[in-house]
Amino acid sequence: MGENIGAAARAMLNFGLSDLRLVNPRDGWPNQSAITMGSGAFDKIEPQIFDTLEHAISDLHFVLATTARARDMIKPVYTPKAAAENIHTQQRRDQKCGIVFGRERNGLENQEISRCQGIIQIPTNPDFSSLNLGQSVLLLAYELFAQNDDTPSRIMDQGDSFPVSQEKFNEFIDRLDDELDRHGFYKTENLKPTMQLNIRNIFSRNELTDQEVRTLHGVISAFTKHKK
Amino acid sequence: MGENIGAAARAMLNFGLSDLRLVNPRDGWPNQSAITMGSGAFDKIEPQIFDTLEHAISDLHFVLATTARARDMIKPVYTPKAAAENIHTQQRRDQKCGIVFGRERNGLENQEISRCQGIIQIPTNPDFSSLNLGQSVLLLAYELFAQNDDTPSRIMDQGDSFPVSQEKFNEFIDRLDDELDRHGFYKTENLKPTMQLNIRNIFSRNELTDQEVRTLHGVISAFTKHKK
Repeated sequence: MGENIGAAARAMLNFGLSDLRLVNPRDGWPNQSAITMGSGAFDKIEPQIFDTLEHAISDLHFVLATTARARDMIKPVYTPKAAAENIHTQQRRDQKCGIVFGRERNGLENQEISRCQGIIQIPTNPDFSSLNLGQSVLLLAYELFAQNDDTPSRIMDQGDSFPVSQEKFNEFIDRLDDELDRHGFYKTENLKPTMQLNIRNIFSRNELTDQEVRTLHGVISAFTKHKK
Repeated sequence: MGENIGAAARAMLNFGLSDLRLVNPRDGWPNQSAITMGSGAFDKIEPQIFDTLEHAISDLHFVLATTARARDMIKPVYTPKAAAENIHTQQRRDQKCGIVFGRERNGLENQEISRCQGIIQIPTNPDFSSLNLGQSVLLLAYELFAQNDDTPSRIMDQGDSFPVSQEKFNEFIDRLDDELDRHGFYKTENLKPTMQLNIRNIFSRNELTDQEVRTLHGVISAFTKHKK
C-alpha cells in the first residue's frame, strides 16, 4: 500500500535512514499516495525497486526480519533494542545491514524469513498487539538512531541564563532567613535548625539561575515592603 | 483532530496504557474519525474529557510535557527513555504520572508547559524532525512498556524442538570428520587440526537442535551414498 510506503519513508528519515528498498510494490512506483503520506521524505529518499527479496538484499551481510508472531523457524529472536545494538556493531565493522518488513496484512513468508540471519519481534500488549507497518518502521528506526545519539538523558535547559553561583545562592538564603526571623517565622529556637535546612533544600535542589535568584530577591522585597 | 486522537489511543493500547485524557477536543467527543482510526482501541479506552489542562492533571503528582523544540523555559529535559525510567520509578512509589502532548500544529503553550515538572524531547534527524502526534505517543508508550517488559534481548527460538546434547553433537562432528577424511578432504596432515577446528566452529556456534543434527546426518548419508 502506498500509504504504508510513505509512512515508512517518513519514519526512516525522521531517524536519519534513507536506503529504502521496495520489493515488487503492489501499485508500482512512483506512487502518489506514498508521496503524499511521505510529507517530503521522498525529496531525500529515492527507493530502489526489486522484483524479489533475494535481489533486494543480495549485497547485504546481516539481515533481520520483523515478524509479529513466532514462527516455526529456528532463528535468534531479538528485541528492537538488541537488534539495533547488533546492527550498530556490525556496521562499525563495515558490514552492510538490513531490516526486512513484510506486507501489511500477511507479513513475511517463511521462505523470506529463511534468508535472514535473525528475527525482530516488538514486544507489545498481548491483548492489542497490531502495529501497522509505519509504526514498526518507526520503532526500529528510533532504536537505530538511539545507537548513535549522544543526547544526555537529562539536561537542565536554562536557555541563555546561567546557574547561580553558590555564593549568590547563599546570600539569597541568608537574606531569606534573616527576613523570616524578623517576621516571626521561627516559632521555637528548638525547631529552627530543621526548618532552616528544609528551606535551603527546597531551593538548593532547584538548580536556580542567576536571574531566578534575582526574581526571588524581588519576591522577598515585595513581601517585606508590604509588611511594613 | 479526531485522527490523531485515534492514533494516540491505538498506540497507547498497543503498549498497555489506557488512561487517556482529552482537553477541549476540537471536534467534541465522541468523534467518529477518532474511533475509526483507533481500530478498536476505544473498546478498552474510555477517554475523560476536561475543559483545561489544569483540571486534566490536577490529581497527578509528576507530569512531563512533550515539546518538539527547546523553549525559553528553565526545566529539566529528558530523553524518552530517561522520562520512562523516571515515571516508572515514581509509579513504584505510588505517584500518579502523566505525559502531556500538544496540538498537532502548535504544540503546547508555555503556560501549559509551566505546569509540568519537566520536558521530554525526542531526538530526531535535525533535517527532518517532524513527528506527528500519534508517532510521539507511540514512542513514549513503547519506552514506558519497555520499563516493565522482561523479554530477553535475544532468544534462540527453537519451537518445539530441543537443543542437541553435546554428546550427539560430537557424534555428528566425528562422523563428518571420518567421512571427510575418507573422501580426501584433508590434503595435508599439517593443516588437518586447523581445518577440524574450523569445521567444528561452523556448526557449534549454530545452536543446533536435535532434529537439525538428524537432518545433517542425512546430508552426510546422501553425499556418501552418492560418492560410492
